[in-house]
Amino acid sequence: SNKKHFLKSKMSTNPFKQERENVSFSQEAMAELLYDGPEELQKFRKFQQVFADDPVLKFDPSKIDISRKELFAEYCKKTYRYHELFNQSSNPINKYCGLMFDEPLVGAVHHSMFVPSIQLLADDEQQKKWLQDALSMKIIGCYAQTELAHGSDVQNLQTTSTYDQATDSFILNTPEVGAAKWWIGELGLVANHAIVYAQLIINGQRYGPQPFMVQIRDLKTHKPLPGIDVGDIGPKYGYNSKDNGFLILNKIRIPRTNMLSRYVKVTDKGEFIPAGNPKIVYATMMKVRLGILYESYYFLAAQLTIATRYSLIRKQFKDENGIERTILDYQTQQDKLLPYMADAYAMAFSFKKTMNMFQENLQRCSKNDFSLLQDLHGLLSAHKSVSTHTTLVGMEKIRQSCGGHGFSSYSGLVGRLKLWYPYSTFEGENTIMLLQTARYLIKKFRKSIRPESRNVLPPQCEYLRDHTLLLSTKCTSENMREFLLLEPLRKMMRFTACFRVVKAANQLEDQVKIKKMHPKEAFDTAAGSLLCDAATSHIHYYIFNSFFEKIIQINNESIREVLSKLCALYALTKIVDRPDALYEGGHINGEQLKLMREAREQLLFELRPEAIGLAEAWNFHDNTLRSAIGSSKGDVYETLLDWVQNKNPLNKPEVQSALHETIAPIIGKVQAPRL
Amino acid sequence: SNKKHFLKSKMSTNPFKQERENVSFSQEAMAELLYDGPEELQKFRKFQQVFADDPVLKFDPSKIDISRKELFAEYCKKTYRYHELFNQSSNPINKYCGLMFDEPLVGAVHHSMFVPSIQLLADDEQQKKWLQDALSMKIIGCYAQTELAHGSDVQNLQTTSTYDQATDSFILNTPEVGAAKWWIGELGLVANHAIVYAQLIINGQRYGPQPFMVQIRDLKTHKPLPGIDVGDIGPKYGYNSKDNGFLILNKIRIPRTNMLSRYVKVTDKGEFIPAGNPKIVYATMMKVRLGILYESYYFLAAQLTIATRYSLIRKQFKDENGIERTILDYQTQQDKLLPYMADAYAMAFSFKKTMNMFQENLQRCSKNDFSLLQDLHGLLSAHKSVSTHTTLVGMEKIRQSCGGHGFSSYSGLVGRLKLWYPYSTFEGENTIMLLQTARYLIKKFRKSIRPESRNVLPPQCEYLRDHTLLLSTKCTSENMREFLLLEPLRKMMRFTACFRVVKAANQLEDQVKIKKMHPKEAFDTAAGSLLCDAATSHIHYYIFNSFFEKIIQINNESIREVLSKLCALYALTKIVDRPDALYEGGHINGEQLKLMREAREQLLFELRPEAIGLAEAWNFHDNTLRSAIGSSKGDVYETLLDWVQNKNPLNKPEVQSALHETIAPIIGKVQAPRL
Repeated sequence: SNKKHFLKSKMSTNPFKQERENVSFSQEAMAELLYDGPEELQKFRKFQQVFADDPVLKFDPSKIDISRKELFAEYCKKTYRYHELFNQSSNPINKYCGLMFDEPLVGAVHHSMFVPSIQLLADDEQQKKWLQDALSMKIIGCYAQTELAHGSDVQNLQTTSTYDQATDSFILNTPEVGAAKWWIGELGLVANHAIVYAQLIINGQRYGPQPFMVQIRDLKTHKPLPGIDVGDIGPKYGYNSKDNGFLILNKIRIPRTNMLSRYVKVTDKGEFIPAGNPKIVYATMMKVRLGILYESYYFLAAQLTIATRYSLIRKQFKDENGIERTILDYQTQQDKLLPYMADAYAMAFSFKKTMNMFQENLQRCSKNDFSLLQDLHGLLSAHKSVSTHTTLVGMEKIRQSCGGHGFSSYSGLVGRLKLWYPYSTFEGENTIMLLQTARYLIKKFRKSIRPESRNVLPPQCEYLRDHTLLLSTKCTSENMREFLLLEPLRKMMRFTACFRVVKAANQLEDQVKIKKMHPKEAFDTAAGSLLCDAATSHIHYYIFNSFFEKIIQINNESIREVLSKLCALYALTKIVDRPDALYEGGHINGEQLKLMREAREQLLFELRPEAIGLAEAWNFHDNTLRSAIGSSKGDVYETLLDWVQNKNPLNKPEVQSALHETIAPIIGKVQAPRL
Repeated sequence: SNKKHFLKSKMSTNPFKQERENVSFSQEAMAELLYDGPEELQKFRKFQQVFADDPVLKFDPSKIDISRKELFAEYCKKTYRYHELFNQSSNPINKYCGLMFDEPLVGAVHHSMFVPSIQLLADDEQQKKWLQDALSMKIIGCYAQTELAHGSDVQNLQTTSTYDQATDSFILNTPEVGAAKWWIGELGLVANHAIVYAQLIINGQRYGPQPFMVQIRDLKTHKPLPGIDVGDIGPKYGYNSKDNGFLILNKIRIPRTNMLSRYVKVTDKGEFIPAGNPKIVYATMMKVRLGILYESYYFLAAQLTIATRYSLIRKQFKDENGIERTILDYQTQQDKLLPYMADAYAMAFSFKKTMNMFQENLQRCSKNDFSLLQDLHGLLSAHKSVSTHTTLVGMEKIRQSCGGHGFSSYSGLVGRLKLWYPYSTFEGENTIMLLQTARYLIKKFRKSIRPESRNVLPPQCEYLRDHTLLLSTKCTSENMREFLLLEPLRKMMRFTACFRVVKAANQLEDQVKIKKMHPKEAFDTAAGSLLCDAATSHIHYYIFNSFFEKIIQINNESIREVLSKLCALYALTKIVDRPDALYEGGHINGEQLKLMREAREQLLFELRPEAIGLAEAWNFHDNTLRSAIGSSKGDVYETLLDWVQNKNPLNKPEVQSALHETIAPIIGKVQAPRL
């Protein structure tokens, strides 16, 4: 029995009607473009509807304020129900899953890391032994790689696995505090097995970190097995339903056949035998980073849908005619939302291009052709970093754009932000990811200056070949309108990327040649900022270019026009934010920079009436958004009041009474000076 | 009985010893500079020690993961104990209080907003009636201004207070959903009184929003009084111990004498009589914004202390000699921390200057001299915005700089970040604050171009007077070393501020004269971005300048030298981040920008060995930092393991068993295809 209020509502019946009619393009056509056709769009709509209709999976605002213990129990229930409804255990976690909750499902890591590791790293016999049970979740496993003192630097992991020929077994051991396995998803409470990465030692000789299957809990009692110390690593900045765990192994003995042996074998005589090429493993595991690119623009788009709608309902201060102005009509508000709308669209189209490359690479690798692997790595590393960073910064700006109500968890903005926090760090720490791409770019640049190799650059690095020519060009546009055209903007994005790669390469060379630094020292201690800039600009250019290439293929004129504006806004925002390369390289002058700023403002103005169409083309269901301020009906204040009165656990009469007990000792008890 | 682990620790006994010895300056002398002398420094140390020694106030990592209900009860206990120890009810909330917990104390708003409102807005008789009870917290009150549909726009609040002459009383009413009071701190659970802002209506005529004292809960039962609907507004992005509340008034009647009447009176005949000048009220209330400036650098400094220490313990990847490199030796890591160290120091010194101006203004106002009020408002508004923004962005970057362990709540970084989230929005929304300063600057600029008023500019706007001359200057520095000098950097900061103010003013004028816009429309819809840039650069220059002025007074040479480097780093970071004004205005060329980048990298290198000294000069007690990774002993991994094993509620055996119950239904229950 919900509490209904006596208060009247001033809300109009369909507050978005006029705004929706003003949009210049067909929203359905835009949606089909985003979802690669009507079929996938229907699939996404149906998938969301299942959640909205199911009492367990449906969003419930009363469950926001619960402890980790309760949260964990809640997500166990959701996971069970999810598997009941979607019996797709060969690929049990649907790609849209991450959008549906503020926390990941139980078993997300099991399905995305543990099961694939068996499929990729175990030999045929081992697969027979474990795979069926892993798929049915009788074996629930985790991927125990990171340690307390070592994360990104996998080669230096300290856990050991020593072969004991007498018993034909490995002894796994945690030698010191820093070697405790740490951060391992689903290890803390859920997993009964772990794939443990440990330094393989045979007869005193080290063979680097290798994967071992270790049972850690009893299958019946779920109690830790002897010699195993395991638990949850505590509360975090987000992902609090997830039981990231620690694992300490006190000389645990496992059979020799528990070393995952598709690519490395140890015989019962203690011989170490590599087999086949494990590059295919890496090629497959890159799928996780690809998924992050995908989530980057979906998360951003969901926040934008909420904030755009709210910005059309919220009014603030009167205009020159005494009528309250809708906040999206303020340039400052447009500036907080529309550039990120451009990011979301640009990232969506560049994702499609990257996915094609990913699939092409998998196909080639399956035929033992690894020619694309390095390029894909060089692309995905910084792409992951730039995308997750863009989305994080955007999400924070977007929640601020909604003022007080954006700060409320009922906005829906907060839960998704918290869910996003780990993305900067996990699956490749963002700075390290930039540096990996930078290293790749420097290599390509050095190739480009050698006549024998300059013609073998991959398409996304081709601009490096003619860098001398490119870096001598000057922008010739002379009025604001010319800066709305994509061609000169494209040149500037390319110039920026090229300038920065060349500059970083020169800096490295100078440090080595002039300052006599070791190349590694130069890379680590004297060029990091330039290298990160180079990788970032390379990805910005790649994203812009993918968007650009897509646009010129579009036949629908109104769609092409609005996307061209978004694409120009994407470029102009990146350029105006950081024009230093263009300036240092002499490509533009001060006047041109001024004109670009004006062009950017012009775009904000022109895109303002398209905002709701651009937001709603993403087709998020109200239940998916989980927002009191961003629903399709625009009933912001009515919903906030409803949730506060009926869904907030602190407003239950018994809770209010109980809390009064805790306040009572304070009331009137402060010794004040007599006045 | 804590669980002790069998694992050995590799930690050295005093890991920071060498680093501390390498610092070039006296840390104690630096601390005394930061705290304005040894006395205040001792006070701060003692204050922190009290918390560290008290079982209730002391930080307890096991209390991080609790629900809002438990959190609220916990903070009631802390508040009671706090008042027991610090019986200073005339100013009960010490300025260091905000640093001591991850949540504000119960009564923080009562003390900072409600009590001062009585002191400032109530007439003598009313003060007699309420003040004593408010000081002893028998009356606990809140400041009920913001409504569901109106925040920043106070003039348009919708709650009404209608004078009824027949009964000599006011009838307070919430006319519709959007008029519900919302976000009011301490209204949800704690307050029994509220100062309600409502539109005063007498005989059908409106007199704007005025303050009314309204009792909302029974003093004995603490139950809401008839006609009053009150409660908590739900979970938030931070501040979750705080019971921000809503209030709906259903034609509540209060005596006429409950209108706070120091500056406005209503007689029993319904006459409205203004009295005195309420500007003094505003002058006093600005103290809240001043306090935010203070917290901005303290919060940032606390995070930096943690991250600096962690970056000296954490090692990652081997160097050219096969030895693991300390992460602070990477340029990328220096680039994440040292520029924010420069911000923290710069903001600390500019705070002192702003505080002097605040006090000068209060003194003048008490003599009915309001000549400084507008200038102080023009400074504080954007200062609040820029400072809170810098700290937010810095805190997020700093936690990312600590990788996985920065993501753990045990880092201490997370709780302080969450506590900081509302600062962008409360006490003046950040964008609106920038626009208020921008409006002030535009006015000053227009004054500066009129001969009769150009000589009355306040010192912080003096650069506008000679803007034509200033904007025609060119930077003449020609080598990297010259860009380490503060004088040319100062000119560039000044140039940037001036260029942006002039540009925004010209844009406004163009819109009005050429595009025939109404000035208000131009300001709101066509110049927002430029205006925000202008205000931001004005504050950057002000902060730089305050720091600069302080440095030239310092006699201690080693301190002056290191602070000069920090000050240069402050300027160079701002310039390299956004050099567009300097280009557009023709002050620098591309080559000079390149040199500034190099100068900036040089400073990162030179400041690296000073990092621990700069961090520890802030003198944060380990208990204040609340961090497993940033304590003075450097026992990062040992403490993390200890807290995880002994303080994490999820690792209690009974909790693990209970949670197994919730996992059991999933295990082995997923229908997998038979292989």
